[in-house]
Amino acid sequence: MHKAFEVTVLGTSSASPTKYRHPSAQFVRMEGEYFLIDCGEGTQLQLTRMGLRMHRIRYILITHLHGDHFFGLPGLITSMGLHGRSDKLTIAGPAALQPVLEAILACGETTLPFEIEYIVCDPNRSEEILVSPALKVVTVPLKHRIPCTGYILKENGPELKLNVAQCEKLKIPVQSYDAIKSGLDYVQDNGTIIPNAELTLPGNKNRSYAYISDTIYDETVAVAVRDCTVLYHEATFLHELEARAKETYHTTALQAGKIAAMAGVSQLLIGHFSARYNDADELQTEARNVFANTEVAEEGKTYTV
Amino acid sequence: MHKAFEVTVLGTSSASPTKYRHPSAQFVRMEGEYFLIDCGEGTQLQLTRMGLRMHRIRYILITHLHGDHFFGLPGLITSMGLHGRSDKLTIAGPAALQPVLEAILACGETTLPFEIEYIVCDPNRSEEILVSPALKVVTVPLKHRIPCTGYILKENGPELKLNVAQCEKLKIPVQSYDAIKSGLDYVQDNGTIIPNAELTLPGNKNRSYAYISDTIYDETVAVAVRDCTVLYHEATFLHELEARAKETYHTTALQAGKIAAMAGVSQLLIGHFSARYNDADELQTEARNVFANTEVAEEGKTYTV
Repeated sequence: MHKAFEVTVLGTSSASPTKYRHPSAQFVRMEGEYFLIDCGEGTQLQLTRMGLRMHRIRYILITHLHGDHFFGLPGLITSMGLHGRSDKLTIAGPAALQPVLEAILACGETTLPFEIEYIVCDPNRSEEILVSPALKVVTVPLKHRIPCTGYILKENGPELKLNVAQCEKLKIPVQSYDAIKSGLDYVQDNGTIIPNAELTLPGNKNRSYAYISDTIYDETVAVAVRDCTVLYHEATFLHELEARAKETYHTTALQAGKIAAMAGVSQLLIGHFSARYNDADELQTEARNVFANTEVAEEGKTYTV
Repeated sequence: MHKAFEVTVLGTSSASPTKYRHPSAQFVRMEGEYFLIDCGEGTQLQLTRMGLRMHRIRYILITHLHGDHFFGLPGLITSMGLHGRSDKLTIAGPAALQPVLEAILACGETTLPFEIEYIVCDPNRSEEILVSPALKVVTVPLKHRIPCTGYILKENGPELKLNVAQCEKLKIPVQSYDAIKSGLDYVQDNGTIIPNAELTLPGNKNRSYAYISDTIYDETVAVAVRDCTVLYHEATFLHELEARAKETYHTTALQAGKIAAMAGVSQLLIGHFSARYNDADELQTEARNVFANTEVAEEGKTYTV
């Protein structure tokens, strides 16, 4: 049985929020852990409206320091403190995030009753910033007007199931089972190798969720997110505004579809829509022309990875 | 005819917003000028929802640097810039406001297409921070956990009307009319004094709006807001939590009613309610027991001063 791996969209606007769209934020549940990706202004209220409990969030991943991606962070952190959080919170983001957050809290003489651990992302290279037996988080360097990092959240468990009957028959010691499930061959004391394929059966494929916002159209992103299960990619403009997208380091819906198709992902979610589009139908149609399994990210909706 | 003097309430929560209450912010229209008082997280969205155009705001008055009173300011200012504002914006608040706002904008490499003029309020004394022939804004030092300033917005026009028939009969030169309307006597070339009362009639009384949040119960506030038309006073708790109010430097609804009664204001508006109160009926009842003309501030509602 797969564990829940779900993404709830909290905001789909770009820089200017509208009456119906909040700035970027997503709540992700994976392997029993809760992540918030980006935290635009009003995120704490969106969480409350959607019945998502802020105290569950253990990791916050911030892509970059434009306001529509982090202006909700001081308020969220302050509220976590007011609600008596004591668990450590881990925040990943650019180097400038920690000093500015500390300056904001200091000017209100706010002290938090919990520890914040900061992970500084290098905007120029991909890094594994979190690794556990169950999951990992990998960064994707993005090309935007300021240092910017995408994130891939991946299940990290063994993709092979033990062929228990066969292992017992061959008297494989139980303490070797984990190594075998991870894909290694078994080596007997006399040097005989029992190939992994004889000891395992295909299991669940690890799923992955890539969050790519904000970026100019950049085919290296397709390489980085290759074979991800679900790709969230910004699609700020329709392709008729390609020049505007390039100038502002954003992507068109058509280009987002191209990245998804090149990367061979299973599903594309698009968001970060310019305020000029009252509804996102045209953006969806445009992306679907290139990559059929495209969905428009809708606020309040939960997507299964 | 009175010019419009109106207050639209954008937020009525205290530190923790709820599903139904946003943090502090009020939009005030007086003498054709538009003010924003406090700017909690989500204020720009509240303005949009209520059809209030952010570009009209010329003055922003911030009481103090707790998040529920200013975490919406970076987003509002950024959006003003994105929407092409070119008019100067004047922001009044504590000394620490300008550096923290500049640090927040700098980390996103945001440059604004308009000038911001900062007025630093001295939290320890009352000052006239804005004065024009039509209006003035006066600060009220408040006692809170950090430096905090209330504001009184006052009409500043002449309260006397000219008795034109009498002035013409006495051959008063037109260039002396303004001095007479401001209350001065007229002095003829031969030294004869014509008392002001012979030349004027009672006109409109200048109205005033006092915004008092956040503060411990403090009777010096009643002195400062004496005879104001409408007093907005925080009423975070019911009086059964008087000890908690004192400890956190807040006021109870009963105490807010007392301040209004002592000050002799015409109307009391209460707000800044603790998240523990789902509705504000009890708070209203408690304040009305002391001061009958009390209204609960409701988000989206406009009050005439």
